[in-house]
Amino acid sequence: LEMYKIAVLPGDGIGPEISAQAVRVLEAVARRFNRDFYFTSGLVGGAAYDETGSPLPEKTLALCRDSDAILFGAVGGPRWDHLPVNLRPEVGGILALRKELGLYANLRPVRVFPALAGASTLKPEVVSGVDLVIVRELTGGLYFGKKYREPLPDGGTRVVDTLEYTTSEIERIARVAFNLARQRRGKLTSVDKANVLESSRYWREVVTGVSRDYPDVSLEHMYVDNCAMQLVKNPKQFDVMVMENMFGDILSDQSSVLSGSLGMLASASLGGNTGLYEPIHGSAPDITGTRQANPIASILSGAMLLRFSLQLSEEADCIEKAVAETLNQGYRTADIAQPGMPLVNTTQMADQIIAQI
Amino acid sequence: LEMYKIAVLPGDGIGPEISAQAVRVLEAVARRFNRDFYFTSGLVGGAAYDETGSPLPEKTLALCRDSDAILFGAVGGPRWDHLPVNLRPEVGGILALRKELGLYANLRPVRVFPALAGASTLKPEVVSGVDLVIVRELTGGLYFGKKYREPLPDGGTRVVDTLEYTTSEIERIARVAFNLARQRRGKLTSVDKANVLESSRYWREVVTGVSRDYPDVSLEHMYVDNCAMQLVKNPKQFDVMVMENMFGDILSDQSSVLSGSLGMLASASLGGNTGLYEPIHGSAPDITGTRQANPIASILSGAMLLRFSLQLSEEADCIEKAVAETLNQGYRTADIAQPGMPLVNTTQMADQIIAQI
Ligand SMILES: CC(C)[C@H](C(=O)O)[C@@H](O)C(=O)O
Ligand SMILES: CC(C)[C@H](C(=O)O)[C@@H](O)C(=O)O
Repeated sequence: LEMYKIAVLPGDGIGPEISAQAVRVLEAVARRFNRDFYFTSGLVGGAAYDETGSPLPEKTLALCRDSDAILFGAVGGPRWDHLPVNLRPEVGGILALRKELGLYANLRPVRVFPALAGASTLKPEVVSGVDLVIVRELTGGLYFGKKYREPLPDGGTRVVDTLEYTTSEIERIARVAFNLARQRRGKLTSVDKANVLESSRYWREVVTGVSRDYPDVSLEHMYVDNCAMQLVKNPKQFDVMVMENMFGDILSDQSSVLSGSLGMLASASLGGNTGLYEPIHGSAPDITGTRQANPIASILSGAMLLRFSLQLSEEADCIEKAVAETLNQGYRTADIAQPGMPLVNTTQMADQIIAQI
Repeated sequence: LEMYKIAVLPGDGIGPEISAQAVRVLEAVARRFNRDFYFTSGLVGGAAYDETGSPLPEKTLALCRDSDAILFGAVGGPRWDHLPVNLRPEVGGILALRKELGLYANLRPVRVFPALAGASTLKPEVVSGVDLVIVRELTGGLYFGKKYREPLPDGGTRVVDTLEYTTSEIERIARVAFNLARQRRGKLTSVDKANVLESSRYWREVVTGVSRDYPDVSLEHMYVDNCAMQLVKNPKQFDVMVMENMFGDILSDQSSVLSGSLGMLASASLGGNTGLYEPIHGSAPDITGTRQANPIASILSGAMLLRFSLQLSEEADCIEKAVAETLNQGYRTADIAQPGMPLVNTTQMADQIIAQI
């Protein structure tokens, strides 16, 4: 019986509430399929800062490196917003972790569960059947370039962020996206702003170069402004999409509306030796402790963990089917509440999913 | 009888088709209100490059400087994409024009005409009543920072774009937004990514500083990823929004879906001596010459021109009411077509609007 080591980093806000439920679901899968998952918790974000003075303690990093996969909750909150930037849960916690582990490829699938086609603010006929994946470059771009302030002669300040990419950074993320498209419907949309940005013009060149190795994938280029519109106007046109870090941050949050709620979307961060799996939503301080949080994004992140890091695709399918079935039966957390359907809290939603496993 | 000088820069693609209709509408307004508008055409974009070798000839710039306002069509198209960047219609044409004329404040109103509440891919109850303005910083940020490529020791390339702002650039755009909010519902949303970008952290500081002069306006800060989601989830929460150039480009195109079509949205670019008015849509090479283009965005840009540059607000109201009434009567161009309603072409739509004036 092979033992799989899973690091659990609950983090802040609703992070602990939702990742606890994802762990329960993984445990149910282990029982059903006779697998051995060994979970170890680590501190990260504001919680880690409070206890150790660092949002990403060495011990947590060592735990991650020694694990087969990482289940991540969420970090951040107003309590830590006054800290120096590098000690904040976002920059010092999750961004540092992504960089340290070399997790350059962030996969954010947007699938609309049939039961939730009516839960979106978009018309059901626009969203039903949507099945796309945003591949977001995660360790470069505008997030990780040089940042500074400098005084000006007039007494003011100049502030600078830098969007940087190298050939190999663009090539490797393009390959991830082409490989994924090849396993899906064979269509890749590369998103950029090549009519204005030099980085986008180069991005387009490199992606076009890589496409020669993937004659079976059809590649299109789309400007980011147009793409933001198309995602709301006609989202079914997309299969796999690949883009710069900041663009991916914006467009994936926007796309969550298609699925009914940000509380539905999981993600996988790949590229290094150990994959990291997290919901795309944040720590939601406003609902922390109210038991309202939707655990499905975290539970589906658990499914991605099984599929991508442990190669247990049957088990991953089982979780995804259990989620679909639970939604079919009408169970809803507050974020996807619908009139006449049973409203459940965080734990109860997980209970129903576990009952299906 | 005061004479107003209006420069008309039709540009490329559908630019000439739609701006011709906006001019016709302005002429109708002149007759009705006994005004004297003097129109002079200038070359810009690909059309200017083809004729003069420059996408922004000196003569056009002089015409703009000598006019009371500029009515701009659209620029760009695949024909000019192979040119060196500075000769392309986008960078060498519209971006250079904005910079030369100091048009740092781009106002993009998103209003949903009652007749079009059903034309969006969003549910009618989500979009009806939406009335917001995106104030996009237009001559700084990621668009205008240093851009370059440099060779790397491994034979690859590093490509760089820079997002730069100075104190005074942020202050002046903040003031435009606060002043506008004060004349409207008194709410301002400043959009940034302060948990990651240094420029956003500084933007937040400066905007907060400026807010002390506007105690009657309520200011909120929102992360750009969350904002992209909120614009689709609950757009009615917004009144005035202010943001960096690239963020404004993405979010305003996205918002066009609320109004039913990109073909509905006008914009005003202010800050220098002469205001520029343009639809937010582009040159649409795919429908050029088909007579399908919706002229309303250009016609409403004409209304903004009257209001902001010529201080003719009664005349501006008249155009806006004529558009609303024409839509109420059911006339639709292809982009906003609805079953059972009369489909009209570019000229016919303008004819109907003129009939209302
Ligand atoms: C918390 C924040 C730094 C993070 C990001 O911007 O990457 C989050 O929004 C995400 O999308 O994972
Ligand atoms: C044509 C292009 C350079 C332009 C921009 O990005 O500013 C357009 O998209 C706009 O929004 O006005």
